[in-house]
Amino acid sequence: MTPKGFVFNAVSAGIRDPGRLDLGLIFSDRPASGAGVFTTNLVRAAPVRLGQQRLPSQSVRGVLVNSGCANACTGEEGLRDAERLLEATARALSIEEGTLLPASTGVIGERLPVEKMLKVVPELVSGLAPEKVEAFARAILTTDTFPKVIERRLCLRGGEIRLLGIAKGAGMIAPHMATMLAFVLTDARLSVSTLQDLLKESVSYSFNRITVDGDMSTNDTVYALANGASELRPEGKDFEEFVRVFREVCQELAYLIVKDGEGATKTVRIKVCGAEDEEKALIMARTVANSLLVKTAFFGEDPNWGRILAALGRSGVPFDPYEVDLFLEEVPIVKDGLSLGKEAEEQAHQVMQKSEFTLTISLKRGNAEAEILTCDLSYEYVKINAEYRT
Amino acid sequence: MTPKGFVFNAVSAGIRDPGRLDLGLIFSDRPASGAGVFTTNLVRAAPVRLGQQRLPSQSVRGVLVNSGCANACTGEEGLRDAERLLEATARALSIEEGTLLPASTGVIGERLPVEKMLKVVPELVSGLAPEKVEAFARAILTTDTFPKVIERRLCLRGGEIRLLGIAKGAGMIAPHMATMLAFVLTDARLSVSTLQDLLKESVSYSFNRITVDGDMSTNDTVYALANGASELRPEGKDFEEFVRVFREVCQELAYLIVKDGEGATKTVRIKVCGAEDEEKALIMARTVANSLLVKTAFFGEDPNWGRILAALGRSGVPFDPYEVDLFLEEVPIVKDGLSLGKEAEEQAHQVMQKSEFTLTISLKRGNAEAEILTCDLSYEYVKINAEYRT
Repeated sequence: MTPKGFVFNAVSAGIRDPGRLDLGLIFSDRPASGAGVFTTNLVRAAPVRLGQQRLPSQSVRGVLVNSGCANACTGEEGLRDAERLLEATARALSIEEGTLLPASTGVIGERLPVEKMLKVVPELVSGLAPEKVEAFARAILTTDTFPKVIERRLCLRGGEIRLLGIAKGAGMIAPHMATMLAFVLTDARLSVSTLQDLLKESVSYSFNRITVDGDMSTNDTVYALANGASELRPEGKDFEEFVRVFREVCQELAYLIVKDGEGATKTVRIKVCGAEDEEKALIMARTVANSLLVKTAFFGEDPNWGRILAALGRSGVPFDPYEVDLFLEEVPIVKDGLSLGKEAEEQAHQVMQKSEFTLTISLKRGNAEAEILTCDLSYEYVKINAEYRT
Repeated sequence: MTPKGFVFNAVSAGIRDPGRLDLGLIFSDRPASGAGVFTTNLVRAAPVRLGQQRLPSQSVRGVLVNSGCANACTGEEGLRDAERLLEATARALSIEEGTLLPASTGVIGERLPVEKMLKVVPELVSGLAPEKVEAFARAILTTDTFPKVIERRLCLRGGEIRLLGIAKGAGMIAPHMATMLAFVLTDARLSVSTLQDLLKESVSYSFNRITVDGDMSTNDTVYALANGASELRPEGKDFEEFVRVFREVCQELAYLIVKDGEGATKTVRIKVCGAEDEEKALIMARTVANSLLVKTAFFGEDPNWGRILAALGRSGVPFDPYEVDLFLEEVPIVKDGLSLGKEAEEQAHQVMQKSEFTLTISLKRGNAEAEILTCDLSYEYVKINAEYRT
């Protein structure tokens, strides 16, 4: 069951591939609190710039999303293209201008085919329905291999609050296509500032803790909409529980994005523990998670711990290599910086044959820890990203 | 003609593959000024730690190098292994202990097979000869596909100074194998401090301006030896010329390392010009050079300028995307941040079919510029680095 008051639809505008769903709409039957977190790339696409202008807001009515064209590096004309589409959609919905948010993913540097897209807006609007989530989730995909939808509900004394998360993203910037997009919808009643804080913190513990290729898109966008249709405002313990579930939705979506990483065959959790503080643990986990040599070793199911230590050593965080322990799941492979031998490596190799596993790096310096979710680097990643665009 | 007073040899100690040349020696018939530049990785191999202890020095007699085992992450025992080998070699050469420098490249975390290696030291020493450069250059290779030797001579009024550079390195850390190693030898007469300054500066404009995979080895080492056998001390204008040639030797070796990058099919010069200062230009060039998406686009011969702009945008250096021009060789593909169209891209695609080309990024903000040499990312890179070590 989707959150109350939200409806969805998706149609084909033929933006890139004729017949493919490529234009999606989320609509709230009443004004919602809206919050957004965006790419920190200096090169920001037109929809990112517009979304940033329109948020935070307490009167958001929906999100218009297209795949197939990122509307990035398109200058002032790109901004006008996005505005025209949002205006036409707002008119078709009979809502105030400026209450819709944009998001785009796809080729950088090409203009949106606005005329084609305007033609299908009536169809897009007229077909809106609560059950069309799946179609919407499909319309926003690029190199993704499956749609990413997470539902949760929270039973409170006064009734039920629902949460729905939808995401796309397979490379941080995919090949021709681009970007990670995510939308978290809830029928809880929340102030704009509460929602913005909640979203920002949840993103830092979910989408900001994954990496596929270390690249950053011009279009990355996470929107949260809370329309209050449940008529429940979570407070006190209920709010704590709501925060937990909200973060969980973000983390599950983030997990699905890594799982669907371009060409990925394995999902790997890099956990650094025993660090002096969380920030240092995070830097080290991220350096290991982005190392090409570590990622290709994951693909090769090779417990090549030398590469892991070498990556830690260039992270910029001070530590004593001869105090580091490494584990693949429960299997110790390095103790105090030294190899535990061939038998341990053979056991670790067994662990790495699984499609998901955890690499634990124990520094024995303090009590802080952090995790990054990553994937392996396969032939397929190179193939997907090397193919000529035309 | 190699620099006067230097002799070379290489033998097989069976460190990894039976019969393969894997132990090399450079020997100077008289004490030489010695300088070194090492990995900045916190995890440093035993030979790096020993080399750092022994330098700078004005009485270096040679370098003992092995491939097949990095002697890294081997603790105090690894240090003693390296010392034992150097001591035995010094005895066989009848020179003072502590005057030989070590370097190793190969698998991390395994001990050197010291006994096997000691057995071949007499053969290694007895066969030393000026013409055995090629054998030495072969013995230090790991995943390299060709030996890397550069010779230069400088004719001065008083006679001739010779320079010889030898290097290995195909990934910054190769698969099982590891590391970039380089040795620059000259028969010029130079003080230790002059040589150290010269080496440090030359490295910053050569080996520190290349990237294959953005990883950093535990073993990276560049040694320079100047034994004065030419009896010429370059000064004034001669010294300027010597500096130029010395730097050129380093740059040529660096170029050969990128050309031989693991799985690389293309060598690409990333040039950022019109920057506010050189450091900013370098950061931007390096970010583009290390982007997986840019590197796979090079492999795919795809002038995917959106990825280049996106990489620049996450470099952390402020700039105006709508002032950026991009060129592939002489072909403009982006003007003021906007595409120059399909025809320009088709021309750029032609340029990218070559095995070497330059990408120029013009920021139009100042007069500073910097270059990084990189290579593409191919299936073969993944293959080389994913293969299980055993």
